[in-house]
Amino acid sequence: MPKVVFSYFPVKALGESARLLLSYGGQDFEDKRVPPESWPEFKPSTPFGQMPVLEIDGKKYAQSLAIARYLGRKYGLAGADIEEDFEIDQNVDFLNDIRAKAATVQYESDEELKKKKHEDFSKNVYPAQLSKLNEIIEKNNGYIAAGKLTWADFVFAGMYDYLKMMLQSPDLDEKFPAFKKLVDTVYALPQLQKYLAAAPKTEL
Amino acid sequence: MPKVVFSYFPVKALGESARLLLSYGGQDFEDKRVPPESWPEFKPSTPFGQMPVLEIDGKKYAQSLAIARYLGRKYGLAGADIEEDFEIDQNVDFLNDIRAKAATVQYESDEELKKKKHEDFSKNVYPAQLSKLNEIIEKNNGYIAAGKLTWADFVFAGMYDYLKMMLQSPDLDEKFPAFKKLVDTVYALPQLQKYLAAAPKTEL
Ligand SMILES: N[C@@H](CCC(=O)N[C@@H](CS)C(=O)NCC(=O)O)C(=O)O
Ligand SMILES: N[C@@H](CCC(=O)N[C@@H](CS)C(=O)NCC(=O)O)C(=O)O
Repeated sequence: MPKVVFSYFPVKALGESARLLLSYGGQDFEDKRVPPESWPEFKPSTPFGQMPVLEIDGKKYAQSLAIARYLGRKYGLAGADIEEDFEIDQNVDFLNDIRAKAATVQYESDEELKKKKHEDFSKNVYPAQLSKLNEIIEKNNGYIAAGKLTWADFVFAGMYDYLKMMLQSPDLDEKFPAFKKLVDTVYALPQLQKYLAAAPKTEL
Repeated sequence: MPKVVFSYFPVKALGESARLLLSYGGQDFEDKRVPPESWPEFKPSTPFGQMPVLEIDGKKYAQSLAIARYLGRKYGLAGADIEEDFEIDQNVDFLNDIRAKAATVQYESDEELKKKKHEDFSKNVYPAQLSKLNEIIEKNNGYIAAGKLTWADFVFAGMYDYLKMMLQSPDLDEKFPAFKKLVDTVYALPQLQKYLAAAPKTEL
């Protein structure tokens, strides 16, 4: 078996999808959780000065979505054809649009502006985005795309707590039960139980 | 031949990659350039309330990068294996990180803050990102990934003028000659000449 190291901050956010996918694939890996204080030292060794980074027998893989797609293809979680692959990619990119929008609020350093942005998006952006996402999941038998479990669901499940925090929406589970149900479906996969039992619990 | 309609605003930006890829693939298509004043009417008919949208025999495809990957696979511009596909995806996602960062400046409505952000990123973010991109292109024989022409190059060429504007860097061609050279390489492809001769010239 190849030697695999996966490096990310000690949170789920953009890294958990790969941890879950490696576990799903039965791939042993070193779950390297880099604490913020060690990051400056580690940063220059990464392909783009960022994490997550996956390392397989010394070859480095960066970019969370590219990594998830790659592992998904390896472990039988891609589409059956290019139409299904397209649908997965499209819906993941939409999910990423929601995350990116919320991130512009989260990472706004001016507190007043942050509040203003959050109010604006909560009224004019998030409702339509989240309803659309809900509609997609309902249309796909509870999954993100192609009506079945794919790597896209691991991306969603992995970033869900982070998304909820950035949306400042603690009641997201209740507003869109299909979201939480999908997260639970992924976390209940038998292949993930060994990893989940051992992994540190984190809020994000 | 299927009936293909491609809808986007009358700019290159996130839509040109698909126009170029369709042309490369020899696919006739209606190049529907939706003027801003018609957008509110058209918006509800799109999958996510945004453009670009590709329509093939009535089936709608959204999300610019997912569309580019899909067309790339159709027209022989994907990787030879999952390792090459990964590299393409990774480098496109990095390119997209640069675009997204610059977009947070471009779409900042507060003029003073916009100026502050631009100064900050010009000093602390863009130089490392652009040097890295340049290094990638030089390492890949002048291409974005896999050492050869792939759909990633169409994404880059299509958004180059838009990126340059958002980076507020009119001298980008001179600073990184490999960027302009790659854009020229794509635009010189014989398959694109009929489209390019007929397409409206746009600044972005
Ligand atoms: N597009 C990249 C974004 C990666 C990213 O934003 N990483 C952040 C943590 S979530 C990071 O490494 N930040 C530290 C830094 O930039 O120094 C991906 O999806 O992997
Ligand atoms: N992630 C999407 C973003 C699409 C997007 O931002 N589209 C903009 C134009 S570049 C749009 O449709 N804006 C009009 C609107 O949101 O009403 C993609 O890559 O296709």
